[in-house]
Amino acid sequence: MQLAAFRRATDPAGTRRTGLVVGDRSAWWLHAFPDGTDLIALLAADPAEREAAADAAARSDGLAPADVVLLPPVYPVAMRDFLTFESHVEGVGKGMQGAPKVPDEWYAAPSFLFMAPHAVTGPYDDVAMPPDTDRLDFELELAAVICRDVRNVTPEQARDAIGGYLVMNDWSARDVQGREMKLGLGPSKGKDFATTIGPWVVTTDELDDCRDADGFLDLEMTVKVNDVRVGGDRSAHMGWSFEHLVSYASRASWVKAGEVLASGTCGGGALAESWGRSGLLTPPPLREGDVVEMTVERVGTIRNRVVAATEQVPSIVPARRRVPEGV
Amino acid sequence: MQLAAFRRATDPAGTRRTGLVVGDRSAWWLHAFPDGTDLIALLAADPAEREAAADAAARSDGLAPADVVLLPPVYPVAMRDFLTFESHVEGVGKGMQGAPKVPDEWYAAPSFLFMAPHAVTGPYDDVAMPPDTDRLDFELELAAVICRDVRNVTPEQARDAIGGYLVMNDWSARDVQGREMKLGLGPSKGKDFATTIGPWVVTTDELDDCRDADGFLDLEMTVKVNDVRVGGDRSAHMGWSFEHLVSYASRASWVKAGEVLASGTCGGGALAESWGRSGLLTPPPLREGDVVEMTVERVGTIRNRVVAATEQVPSIVPARRRVPEGV
Repeated sequence: MQLAAFRRATDPAGTRRTGLVVGDRSAWWLHAFPDGTDLIALLAADPAEREAAADAAARSDGLAPADVVLLPPVYPVAMRDFLTFESHVEGVGKGMQGAPKVPDEWYAAPSFLFMAPHAVTGPYDDVAMPPDTDRLDFELELAAVICRDVRNVTPEQARDAIGGYLVMNDWSARDVQGREMKLGLGPSKGKDFATTIGPWVVTTDELDDCRDADGFLDLEMTVKVNDVRVGGDRSAHMGWSFEHLVSYASRASWVKAGEVLASGTCGGGALAESWGRSGLLTPPPLREGDVVEMTVERVGTIRNRVVAATEQVPSIVPARRRVPEGV
Repeated sequence: MQLAAFRRATDPAGTRRTGLVVGDRSAWWLHAFPDGTDLIALLAADPAEREAAADAAARSDGLAPADVVLLPPVYPVAMRDFLTFESHVEGVGKGMQGAPKVPDEWYAAPSFLFMAPHAVTGPYDDVAMPPDTDRLDFELELAAVICRDVRNVTPEQARDAIGGYLVMNDWSARDVQGREMKLGLGPSKGKDFATTIGPWVVTTDELDDCRDADGFLDLEMTVKVNDVRVGGDRSAHMGWSFEHLVSYASRASWVKAGEVLASGTCGGGALAESWGRSGLLTPPPLREGDVVEMTVERVGTIRNRVVAATEQVPSIVPARRRVPEGV
């Protein structure tokens, strides 16, 4: 089942609603659930109940893509970004951190960071050029939507907490991020201007036939810039399954319904990886007018145009110093 | 005004309520606001309205500390931890990162990370020893509670978005954190088991007389372990004011009502700083039974005992490798 959040194109108030999506990228339409239907609650529902709700919704008239604006399927209560693709770590490490190899610590456990939760944008929304960057980049990721609160769960127990999957573009200003990461806190302003998620949530049961022998989802992931393929990978190249990620995150800590847990950038899923491997800025950083399209097989496609910044940002104020300069 | 979240000690359902706190650490009592009163909404209210609500609440019978359990004043919609104390950066840098000096990037902008938002615990709650650590530490911080959604605000405009302040202990497992930080993402599991906030929110107007010439709050901060002072600082030693932090975070991004923005560890506000400066594990890492007490002048005191772990955590699964070992 494919579940979307949307507003009617003609609704000036822009009420957020939940819809059942029928079809795929080439031809789809949408049936609205009753007002107030919560997408996360549908994911958590018993499958038979969810099917009954979908059957009822499907009896209403379908809405065409032109009739609706797709919204981020979830406004996450928290969003975690893991680092699960070994070849991405290896490629980016060569550039940004001058690391000769993948650190031993990478293999030991699936590390993650908490992302800016308010930055999510809809699957076809324009993305404004963020401030202070000459190196705008994308990150192609697959992400899981959590539908149940869990704590201290095994990977087997974690499976029930994953309601479905969506595609993520974790837009990144590499120059801003590079400066931030020198302080050891990870990136923040380098990534907090936009995170595209969508186009909808594909429920876990739809992907049961896409798992490899170890239970890892094995889906083709592709990114195009201006309709030219620039990178991609297979999700089975993750070092851990999503069930492993949930289990690890849940150790002595809550993972809650409405969270989004992302795979991290797949191999070839960011320009920075090419920059790291070659030492050159080719392909070039994203520019205004560029269109970035990401597809994960069986999950969907998100497509976004980079547009000019429209916001006036406040100045950055340097620190009031305590330790005299030169110490 | 001091606003607390609490439950009645005798209420088995543990309904979360908002209360007006009268008095200070040595002697306080609490008057309940009507059921359903939202603490963040009170912070955002017009001061005259807030005063009227407080006057009405104060006519009800006061509850003694023994009658209530204080809860985290807010369950944050997001929580950001900055790195604003230069001497902490300098001290910790010596140990954890082998850095000879404060990086230039620190002075340029107030960097931050997003914290685990579901880890907040009440001001007097016990904290269970987290898994995998022999180096449990505390971090003494002052934090602002946001009461209005803002984006692209100047420091002057940011002031209205800060509803009040509270004390924070950002508990940290330094060995776990150290391993994570080698991957450049910042800490996550090293800090996601507990973040103590409280004891209540002191509204911004209460601290108007505590600002220095540049408008920085100047409050004494102290941390004791087992009733012995082990560190402290003054909040005016931050490199930026809280208004600066909100302004910076709001650049091309939302800072929302219900967020908590923390100063980062003050100078001397963590054992790791001593460990970094001396190269020795003295004072020793926290052990079961230790009581950590933090006080920020005019804001309040939080006090927590470290207790034995009670949770069975799932095993950590290492990565399924793609790049052959030795590459």
